Amino acid sequence: MNLNQELDLYFKRNREEHLDELKSFLRISSISSLNEHKQDTRKAAEWLKNALEQAGLEHVSIDETAGHPVVYADWLNAPGKPTVLVYGHYDVQPVDPLHLWETPPFDPHVRDNKLYARGASDDKGQTFMHIKTAEALLKLNGELPVNMKFIIEGEEEIGSPNLPVYVEENKEKLAADLIVISDTGMQGPGRPAVCYGLRGLAGIQIDVKGPKGDLHSGLYGGAVQNPIHAVADIVASFHDQEGTVQVDGFYDDVRPLKDEERTAYRELDFDLEAEKKALGITEDFGESGYSFLERTWVRPTLEINGIFGGFSGEGIKTVIPSEAGAKITCRLVPDQKPDDIIAKLRAHVDAHLPPGVTVTITEFDKGTPFITPFDHPAIQAAGRSYEKVYNVPTVYTRMGGSVPIVAEFDRILGLPVVLMGFGLSTENFHAPNEHFHLENFDKGLRVIGDYLSEAAKL
Amino acid sequence: MNLNQELDLYFKRNREEHLDELKSFLRISSISSLNEHKQDTRKAAEWLKNALEQAGLEHVSIDETAGHPVVYADWLNAPGKPTVLVYGHYDVQPVDPLHLWETPPFDPHVRDNKLYARGASDDKGQTFMHIKTAEALLKLNGELPVNMKFIIEGEEEIGSPNLPVYVEENKEKLAADLIVISDTGMQGPGRPAVCYGLRGLAGIQIDVKGPKGDLHSGLYGGAVQNPIHAVADIVASFHDQEGTVQVDGFYDDVRPLKDEERTAYRELDFDLEAEKKALGITEDFGESGYSFLERTWVRPTLEINGIFGGFSGEGIKTVIPSEAGAKITCRLVPDQKPDDIIAKLRAHVDAHLPPGVTVTITEFDKGTPFITPFDHPAIQAAGRSYEKVYNVPTVYTRMGGSVPIVAEFDRILGLPVVLMGFGLSTENFHAPNEHFHLENFDKGLRVIGDYLSEAAKL
Repeated sequence: MNLNQELDLYFKRNREEHLDELKSFLRISSISSLNEHKQDTRKAAEWLKNALEQAGLEHVSIDETAGHPVVYADWLNAPGKPTVLVYGHYDVQPVDPLHLWETPPFDPHVRDNKLYARGASDDKGQTFMHIKTAEALLKLNGELPVNMKFIIEGEEEIGSPNLPVYVEENKEKLAADLIVISDTGMQGPGRPAVCYGLRGLAGIQIDVKGPKGDLHSGLYGGAVQNPIHAVADIVASFHDQEGTVQVDGFYDDVRPLKDEERTAYRELDFDLEAEKKALGITEDFGESGYSFLERTWVRPTLEINGIFGGFSGEGIKTVIPSEAGAKITCRLVPDQKPDDIIAKLRAHVDAHLPPGVTVTITEFDKGTPFITPFDHPAIQAAGRSYEKVYNVPTVYTRMGGSVPIVAEFDRILGLPVVLMGFGLSTENFHAPNEHFHLENFDKGLRVIGDYLSEAAKL
Repeated sequence: MNLNQELDLYFKRNREEHLDELKSFLRISSISSLNEHKQDTRKAAEWLKNALEQAGLEHVSIDETAGHPVVYADWLNAPGKPTVLVYGHYDVQPVDPLHLWETPPFDPHVRDNKLYARGASDDKGQTFMHIKTAEALLKLNGELPVNMKFIIEGEEEIGSPNLPVYVEENKEKLAADLIVISDTGMQGPGRPAVCYGLRGLAGIQIDVKGPKGDLHSGLYGGAVQNPIHAVADIVASFHDQEGTVQVDGFYDDVRPLKDEERTAYRELDFDLEAEKKALGITEDFGESGYSFLERTWVRPTLEINGIFGGFSGEGIKTVIPSEAGAKITCRLVPDQKPDDIIAKLRAHVDAHLPPGVTVTITEFDKGTPFITPFDHPAIQAAGRSYEKVYNVPTVYTRMGGSVPIVAEFDRILGLPVVLMGFGLSTENFHAPNEHFHLENFDKGLRVIGDYLSEAAKL
């Protein structure tokens, strides 16, 4: 029995115990964006510290930052071997609208070989797999084929505001040969993918203020600017009817799509009809001249994530609210710069503000877009490990989402970043009923195990 | 001492007791639009039944309807004298945003001779004044100068959906010579007004549906129509940049403003700067070619009362919501018809719906606009009663708000409707910190007492 076979057997024998452990991790409501969950977020860090120690990792610590802490661990007993830095995050997205969850977000349930809970896929489940693989190798072999370091943060879902400083200050401690992150998706069920490009992020909230208090719309309607109308005017001004962003200069720094990329994406055999069915839409929609994949992978976007103002309860309330607002995020592609895009958004809002109201603009977290050569040996090795377990060719993709810290790792540590994801796009991360296909949990453990052996040869 | 002097003395002596009684009425959270307050709404009807009986009125009953009940009472022992029908409502508006109330909405407090509570002005306080005046006359004199009937409903704030049927079915029981309603405002502090025109109401809710579940805006942004963008596009399409409504045919049936009305309104000495300061706005805004009063009294409007979709909590959530929507009400003027306006709104929404989403339209309550000749003797008598107490000339105004049932009384019973209001536009009805100036409570009791004597001579 070779090591991969031993690992396979080990994971099968311990499957229930591993899932129970993961469930206890998922029960912690570590929503990093909400102040009332601050203690829960720390609880998740403490849970991880314990799990890393139990796994046999060393120098386990909870490192404080200006926000939620970073959990660090390592195993450095393979002199002369490469060092693999694993990054993950223990924080999760908010859970509203709560009533749409079939089972509560922090009460994990397995249905149809899928594990349902907030964070099951993004990213507790995937982070947990790396810890369990290291544990399995240490238990079976007494050692790891490479040196390993873990940093698991608690602020990914709010844009990792404190991680860059942490990484800068701990450059030596984090020194490694490559970084592995499992926080992205596969190309589809049974279709492994290594992601070599991520979009960046820039966002603002606009708060429009009109009269000093709410007004009766019967008495004042027609004579006073309604903050809701003003917000709608601004929001409507962001796109033309085809969905092309109308912010001045928005596309200026976008690196043109190469012909070979376009061809490679066409050859991915993406099934638009199946995707539309999965999303429950009758037609796709967006910037003309680009395909669905191009719109989500290589083109920048501007989306309103929330709009609010006035009465939203049952029935009617004839009010002109004092305030209304919207939350806006842009996904950026190389070579757009978040600060530049924020400045352009500000100028657009100021230029489109209707008379009679004032606006306050608040900036959200930012992330630089990331792209890396997919022919790097560390990335190609990941493709081989996938192929051994899934028995199909690995595809090399880009992704619409952002893991802002990836570009920071690239910038600060100058290391290749291997995005080895096990999620599926249908798994409702950031939405009600997030889940994780346990098939990819089972296979992923073996992919990671194989990859550590492959990495030893780099 | 004449009757008016006796009344004056009586109201002064019993002031604290009357205010305590009114406070107990205001403590009942009779929000007609919210199902969870259904029992509270009935409690307010029961409170009224008891108050009317204590006042010496007869045939007091709680009359069931398909919704909240109507409270009826009468005193018909003045043969040969006119019959005055008093209409009021015991239901109130919702109270959110609750955190903006200085004292809780259903815990009445007097500050600076103003009574703060939801319903203090609209309309529990003003309805209560009519009951107390009848009670005072019966206690002092053993009789009323006229026959009186009261109907006090519990659905005014949701558009009186069941009152027209009730009035039709009880035409004989409600037979009268005139109707008095105190549910409108004065022209300003110390400046009495009789309102002879009210705007009508027509409203819809639009619910826009996109993907079947919430989506991650990073992964799908740019390729899927965002329901928030769609709602904003529709909302923005309703007005041009000056606030003129762009719904096709919206102004078709608007009766042109007469030169003498325009002149009369100009002579009202309306202080725009003071109004802007009171509202906390730097500039007024609306349809060009019309003044502030014209925009709110004689021109129709379309206002968004609520907009909703996606994440509105603290921080950021990168979501494309499955649904978004808006609540829309129009104020109508003669000779616009609510059903016609609803049909035009529907056509507009359908024509402006962006691709990739569907829309559901729900109709709200409707009200026909009302206008009556201000030279009717019953209306002129009201002006004289005001002048005796306030010692300034009464002005004859129109109002931007709607009391939809007024047009129904006009239509079904064919009676003159005297809108004898004691509220002030600054009293935050429909908003946090609703209050009622007790100066107008005190003076209003005397105006109503005098008016009943005046009405006896009609």
